[in-house]
Amino acid sequence: MPPTLPTQIPEKTIERLSEYRRSLISCYKRGITHIFSHILAGMHGITAVQVRRDLMLIGFSSDTKKGYDVKVLIDFIDTILYSEETMKVAVLGMGHLGQAITKYFNSKNLNIRIVAALDIDEAKVGQTILDIPCYHIDDLEDVVANNDISIVILSLPSSVAAQYTVPIINSGIKGVLNFTSAPFNFTQGIVVENYDITTVLEKVAYFVKANEENNNQ
Amino acid sequence: MPPTLPTQIPEKTIERLSEYRRSLISCYKRGITHIFSHILAGMHGITAVQVRRDLMLIGFSSDTKKGYDVKVLIDFIDTILYSEETMKVAVLGMGHLGQAITKYFNSKNLNIRIVAALDIDEAKVGQTILDIPCYHIDDLEDVVANNDISIVILSLPSSVAAQYTVPIINSGIKGVLNFTSAPFNFTQGIVVENYDITTVLEKVAYFVKANEENNNQ
Repeated sequence: MPPTLPTQIPEKTIERLSEYRRSLISCYKRGITHIFSHILAGMHGITAVQVRRDLMLIGFSSDTKKGYDVKVLIDFIDTILYSEETMKVAVLGMGHLGQAITKYFNSKNLNIRIVAALDIDEAKVGQTILDIPCYHIDDLEDVVANNDISIVILSLPSSVAAQYTVPIINSGIKGVLNFTSAPFNFTQGIVVENYDITTVLEKVAYFVKANEENNNQ
Repeated sequence: MPPTLPTQIPEKTIERLSEYRRSLISCYKRGITHIFSHILAGMHGITAVQVRRDLMLIGFSSDTKKGYDVKVLIDFIDTILYSEETMKVAVLGMGHLGQAITKYFNSKNLNIRIVAALDIDEAKVGQTILDIPCYHIDDLEDVVANNDISIVILSLPSSVAAQYTVPIINSGIKGVLNFTSAPFNFTQGIVVENYDITTVLEKVAYFVKANEENNNQ
């Protein structure tokens, strides 16, 4: 049992725990059994104080002479981040982006798994794509109920995304990861993460431009 | 000329400006000429105070009786976010994710444009994929120089990403948008955005689980 209530942990800490975990697994595979907070911090471009604060928040403490025990820390983060059972996910929109996401996630050893795709393309509906069945998007409610799906990933065109707001709410979905540029804001206790990749490219471009202008001054 | 120095604007404001801009364009296309801050705020699930603060930061003011002039605000944000000339981008890794990203970005009317792909797959090198030429990844420095590329998008397998750190620095690249789960931290004045989509899915899953546990208590 994690020693703190999960909802007391800030979003940013959850993100970093997920990132630490992947770095720790990578270290562990290379035979590294112990790691100091400043080394872990350096891998993520943050301070050791931040790492220690995050781990303190989840109630993790360690022998500081040798650093954190990598395996113990991975297992501890797992108890925070993961349920016992696999969380099931459906992809809405099985185009290029939907397929990329499916291939990417399901190739990883997560206990979050994409188990169904939904699309309107008759060439895809009824088929198995990347080892998962593809259903018609109109059957969302049944697919969610029959497959015990908790989360949907929106990878359909931004222009049509909004029309699936009501079906998503009706389906009983608990979380939405939205890759479209149409922002979703549910007020029904659904966890929503709007994750528009255009925004992040524009942000990089902006700071590149800002750096150039500063250098030219 | 934007009235404030670009580097004084916080990262989160830049992200929101990019998001406001897309919503405003969508409104404008539907014939909406004026919009109040609380309406724009509602579309993004934030407060009107936040919207007004962001626009104040970039020096934008408006007639509050009718709300913001949509077209004027779009043009104003453009002067903040964009250069006169198109910013050129290369994609490292032209697999599923690289192709999805290319198709997605280049279908939008941004003045950031993906103009080259780099891969190690001999079946792709020398070909034109989604209207852009694909080069061997070993030719990164030449491709960047010959095409005036400012930004690279990393969409290659996380396990091989680290080996391109030095070539990226040597190529003179100014910004990196990293979709792999291997964090990049350049200290050479390169703008880096680590944007691992696994992290965000794990975050949604965590808060779905936390909500469920709270509901069961």
